[in-house]
Amino acid sequence: MGSSFGTVLKISTFGESHGGGVGAVIEGCPPRLPLSLADIQIELDRRRPGQSHLTTQRQEADQVEILSGVFEGYTTGVPIGVLVRNKDARPAAYEHLKGLYRPSHADYTYEAKYGHRNWQGSGRASARETIGRVAAGAVARKLLSAVGEVEIVAWVCQVGKITGHIDSETVTRVAVEEHATRCPDPGVRDTMATAITNARRDGDSLGGVVACVVRGVPPGLGDPVFDRFEADLAKAMLSLPAVKGFEIGSGFGGVLLRGSEHNDLFDTDPDGKIRTRTNYSGGVQGGITNGENIFFRVAFKPTATISRSQETRNRDGDSVVFAGKGRHDPCVVPRAVPMVEAMCCLVLADHFLRQRTVDLLPPL
Amino acid sequence: MGSSFGTVLKISTFGESHGGGVGAVIEGCPPRLPLSLADIQIELDRRRPGQSHLTTQRQEADQVEILSGVFEGYTTGVPIGVLVRNKDARPAAYEHLKGLYRPSHADYTYEAKYGHRNWQGSGRASARETIGRVAAGAVARKLLSAVGEVEIVAWVCQVGKITGHIDSETVTRVAVEEHATRCPDPGVRDTMATAITNARRDGDSLGGVVACVVRGVPPGLGDPVFDRFEADLAKAMLSLPAVKGFEIGSGFGGVLLRGSEHNDLFDTDPDGKIRTRTNYSGGVQGGITNGENIFFRVAFKPTATISRSQETRNRDGDSVVFAGKGRHDPCVVPRAVPMVEAMCCLVLADHFLRQRTVDLLPPL
Amino acid sequence: MGSSFGTVLKISTFGESHGGGVGAVIEGCPPRLPLSLADIQIELDRRRPGQSHLTTQRQEADQVEILSGVFEGYTTGVPIGVLVRNKDARPAAYEHLKGLYRPSHADYTYEAKYGHRNWQGSGRASARETIGRVAAGAVARKLLSAVGEVEIVAWVCQVGKITGHIDSETVTRVAVEEHATRCPDPGVRDTMATAITNARRDGDSLGGVVACVVRGVPPGLGDPVFDRFEADLAKAMLSLPAVKGFEIGSGFGGVLLRGSEHNDLFDTDPDGKIRTRTNYSGGVQGGITNGENIFFRVAFKPTATISRSQETRNRDGDSVVFAGKGRHDPCVVPRAVPMVEAMCCLVLADHFLRQRTVDLLPPL
Amino acid sequence: MGSSFGTVLKISTFGESHGGGVGAVIEGCPPRLPLSLADIQIELDRRRPGQSHLTTQRQEADQVEILSGVFEGYTTGVPIGVLVRNKDARPAAYEHLKGLYRPSHADYTYEAKYGHRNWQGSGRASARETIGRVAAGAVARKLLSAVGEVEIVAWVCQVGKITGHIDSETVTRVAVEEHATRCPDPGVRDTMATAITNARRDGDSLGGVVACVVRGVPPGLGDPVFDRFEADLAKAMLSLPAVKGFEIGSGFGGVLLRGSEHNDLFDTDPDGKIRTRTNYSGGVQGGITNGENIFFRVAFKPTATISRSQETRNRDGDSVVFAGKGRHDPCVVPRAVPMVEAMCCLVLADHFLRQRTVDLLPPL
Repeated sequence: MGSSFGTVLKISTFGESHGGGVGAVIEGCPPRLPLSLADIQIELDRRRPGQSHLTTQRQEADQVEILSGVFEGYTTGVPIGVLVRNKDARPAAYEHLKGLYRPSHADYTYEAKYGHRNWQGSGRASARETIGRVAAGAVARKLLSAVGEVEIVAWVCQVGKITGHIDSETVTRVAVEEHATRCPDPGVRDTMATAITNARRDGDSLGGVVACVVRGVPPGLGDPVFDRFEADLAKAMLSLPAVKGFEIGSGFGGVLLRGSEHNDLFDTDPDGKIRTRTNYSGGVQGGITNGENIFFRVAFKPTATISRSQETRNRDGDSVVFAGKGRHDPCVVPRAVPMVEAMCCLVLADHFLRQRTVDLLPPL
Repeated sequence: MGSSFGTVLKISTFGESHGGGVGAVIEGCPPRLPLSLADIQIELDRRRPGQSHLTTQRQEADQVEILSGVFEGYTTGVPIGVLVRNKDARPAAYEHLKGLYRPSHADYTYEAKYGHRNWQGSGRASARETIGRVAAGAVARKLLSAVGEVEIVAWVCQVGKITGHIDSETVTRVAVEEHATRCPDPGVRDTMATAITNARRDGDSLGGVVACVVRGVPPGLGDPVFDRFEADLAKAMLSLPAVKGFEIGSGFGGVLLRGSEHNDLFDTDPDGKIRTRTNYSGGVQGGITNGENIFFRVAFKPTATISRSQETRNRDGDSVVFAGKGRHDPCVVPRAVPMVEAMCCLVLADHFLRQRTVDLLPPL
Repeated sequence: MGSSFGTVLKISTFGESHGGGVGAVIEGCPPRLPLSLADIQIELDRRRPGQSHLTTQRQEADQVEILSGVFEGYTTGVPIGVLVRNKDARPAAYEHLKGLYRPSHADYTYEAKYGHRNWQGSGRASARETIGRVAAGAVARKLLSAVGEVEIVAWVCQVGKITGHIDSETVTRVAVEEHATRCPDPGVRDTMATAITNARRDGDSLGGVVACVVRGVPPGLGDPVFDRFEADLAKAMLSLPAVKGFEIGSGFGGVLLRGSEHNDLFDTDPDGKIRTRTNYSGGVQGGITNGENIFFRVAFKPTATISRSQETRNRDGDSVVFAGKGRHDPCVVPRAVPMVEAMCCLVLADHFLRQRTVDLLPPL
Repeated sequence: MGSSFGTVLKISTFGESHGGGVGAVIEGCPPRLPLSLADIQIELDRRRPGQSHLTTQRQEADQVEILSGVFEGYTTGVPIGVLVRNKDARPAAYEHLKGLYRPSHADYTYEAKYGHRNWQGSGRASARETIGRVAAGAVARKLLSAVGEVEIVAWVCQVGKITGHIDSETVTRVAVEEHATRCPDPGVRDTMATAITNARRDGDSLGGVVACVVRGVPPGLGDPVFDRFEADLAKAMLSLPAVKGFEIGSGFGGVLLRGSEHNDLFDTDPDGKIRTRTNYSGGVQGGITNGENIFFRVAFKPTATISRSQETRNRDGDSVVFAGKGRHDPCVVPRAVPMVEAMCCLVLADHFLRQRTVDLLPPL
């Protein structure tokens, strides 16, 4: 259990950092959707290591192969298998990690849970696992684009103590992709880049916040009680490596407002459509989308791997000094942007398909 | 879909604010667990309306009935059905809400999703729905108490702009229950109570934050990749009404630290057991518990129902002035405490049972 | 686990023979479906004990209550809770069964599995458990009637060695309900009734076969690979008490044919619609309905409870002579007819809703 | 939906007859299980085409690759990905099938369901899909062997009208593997082989029955109500291609007995263990194993592909004469034996793991 996500559009991922490869089986994608390798590769390219000077230097082209479920350029409705081979795997480089519990990594907890683990490059706990999700998210995005005008844009809004100011109503993917930080605020992005570079230089790392907006969502998606749209989003985001927090709409800041300030008053737009004047709700009310922009933020902790020496313990309980070598991201948020989008696309597409089973009978 | 939660210990809830009643079917509770009505009623009493001057004045004794699954004082392993009848239901009092979209309520979104809804007292979107969860959570708590020394304590740590200072290492349930606010900080709790009373007097409402600690959790619970312990917790919390944010361990604040500060260095305790020196991780690493205290915080928005007049719209798009009458909580967090604990117990017990299927074969 | 069924239209049942009652939570029924108590009661009346001289004499009116999910005569899309109280419960009458393992009952296996069981009237293993399913099946049937012209008719086609000859193309529910045996063949049904009466007189019991046809199913329902339509039907039927076999279309008899005889050649009907000339497939090919009649048969063993003395063992391994008293069906098939139909309706409705998520994009 | 099976031990399969390959993701296998390629390959070799003169002449070595989840010879508890590449794929050979609806194949129903399909070699509906299951079944078998003395033996007991007589108490896998028919009855197996050869010569095909016994199952596996052991087995078997019937224990034949004959009287064995004197129940009572041998039978229809000409229709409704060419099994049952065993192993292992979550608390 634990490696599957979704109900109608359901994915099962597999794979470790070193070994045969990583991938996913994507079930429940409707047939007749045009789908090409490029549709998936474009998202993997945004996620892959080595794409800029701010990320890990591990070199992986992360070329995806579609094993099944697509025929003559269209999905067939049966499971889509995707596979990415591990290329720049250097298992020998990890020999010294064998019995070690790196601080704030999953070494100890995997040992506690499973009693046997692939310790090469973090094994299953490696962020390479997210390849399957990003590939699946690309399929979900393609599906969403076939049925509506949904836009999903995530961006870096904070790195360490540096905060960007970005208008979620207008931010575009192009603006996000312009800069290696994936922060679309020209006023701070270079400072952010420098901070990341400095952290690496210091043998240290930084945390950050990724924000995400979804524009053009129809009202009515999400299921009370447990599968509220925001609950499924929260789970999706907290399932990403290094995430420590999630908030939607007003989030933790909303606690400071009174109800009379926080309530989103209903209004009608010129077409007579029901809208809200403000959007503290972040696009969901009672667990269901209300047609306003969905807006949420995700907190990522500073990367656990740092090249500075730290004292830790090994499997025998002995004190060991450990310093990370080489290939790691000094700050994960630039590469986390496509991961956040992928998980968001999966939640959206799943709830879109679920709503098809609700919206069946004629209006009363 | 949407009204079930859990994988091994699985609950399905039903019921609306007005109608036959609310309840749950609890599947997967192991047999031979001593379970009495009182075990469940005690938690419902903490949740029920009318328990203090800070909560809604709706009078509901919320007496629970066990319909099945318990025999001669012990669970039998088959589904436990629980039912609470609605007593103080006044459907007529809601007649004026029939076509109305109350601000930041689920009226509009239920209409958009379902096209037909029970508009009496918010129907399924009422917080009365949480009765089934709290009852199920009481069963989960009983199970946890039968297999270990786990302590789950939640408390109010913030109301509006007033923040309490509470030591999560030592806070007790007794201290939480001492005060109607369920804030165990004697330095601020009266101020909080006054703030809530004032908000009600002003026809307004307040938000708040509930914190929760779990002490005594064994390492190894939680499943990578998607069913990380914190991901399931996040979903559980965001599925509660009025929740807008979740953070675990260092949360959003952890973003401000560098990796060298944030990393929890491993150490050994006097018994040679692996421990961490700090707990920014909040008790989970790589999605799996590490044996340290689990610590998380949940943000609740200010109550949407306020008695102050607000302009909103009805089903026909007409402008309508609406003011909530009478029975609602000016601040939900005191009553949210048992809900947070209940959902936490459900996640914990489920993952405890899941781990039974992992920890099968002898050590290598 | 084990008390839930279905994926989109999903039911969770609860309850034992003696205790608070039996019922179900029905999730995933679309909103805006007209649904009354009578829609459900009519099916429960076909299932209830004491309806004819051929069935058990336990007197249960089995009056159903809808606890939730229906408002002003229509479903609201949220879970429908249904409850039937146990009335003619005589726990004292079962005191002698406490430690006994009745032959071919579930006493021993429940003990082996759970180590604690409700031994009153078979507890959860009682056929009263099927009340929740029959109620849910009635909801499914109502849904099917709202979206098409599907007819589901089950009947008794064999009792012991007596076999009826019924044309599945034309058999009607009215014809089935005409006789207490629920066998629509006037040539054998009285003989069947006599056989059942004689078996009871002899302190013995009989088995039988229920056949079922579904007419008017659209092609395209059922999901390869594991959730084939016939696989889900098989599971549904084998989940009914006393069932030992299932066959669809040609079934075990089809083994005797050669491929050239067994293949259903495609043809077109006068409207140009694709049809098959024969229907050995029983309406499913490759796990998916082909638009022909679905036809299947279900074997029920002779009732385990008989009033004749049998030697068995108790919990301590002692030899005990046991003779069933009073209230049991000498042959279950007449009352099994509505159960078979109910489970069939649930499978059909679930797959109908699932297909909504497949049939989304325009034809190529 | 539809390509996953199991609850704790859960598999998701993917792949078509022609394309990148076929495989499975196996979730929930406990860590520390010794597992080698050979453990899986041995079962695939029993399933693969071209293994004898009685099977299809398609040449596929079906070499399996383990992509993940195994490290240094032991499972790690994370998903096991397995992949078999398609080698002897000749898509061009299927060009003439493009718009054709072969009789009793899934061409028409896939078209009806999906509106777009991979028509090369039956695509997803090909029996090659079972490779993923057989590989997963091998893992399940390995797990079962690590925790007990369970023996799972399936064999061919009927081909067309020829029936073998085999003692399920004593039949061995060695005896089954001795003959290309996989019928262990020396009195009929050559006749069966001749019948199959003759059917091929006649451009025709035969059906058959596979029986299966499981010895050494502990009592207590299986979950009432819906996930009865026999219900999950029935679903597993009906999910195999070409299956039209399933029966357990006395099956359809049990209908001819009276209760007094059919009841399995309890007794004690010399060790004082509860046993039954007969086993009409087939090892399950009330959906739960009772410790006796599980015995069931599965009916396979005659192969739909025959080389004899048949009239059928194409996508446009035109009459077309079709004759299968070359590579198909004239009778599927010899190769179905490992498939039946694989699905049985999956059901058993899943319920074994599920029972771990039930059997938790001390005896009362």
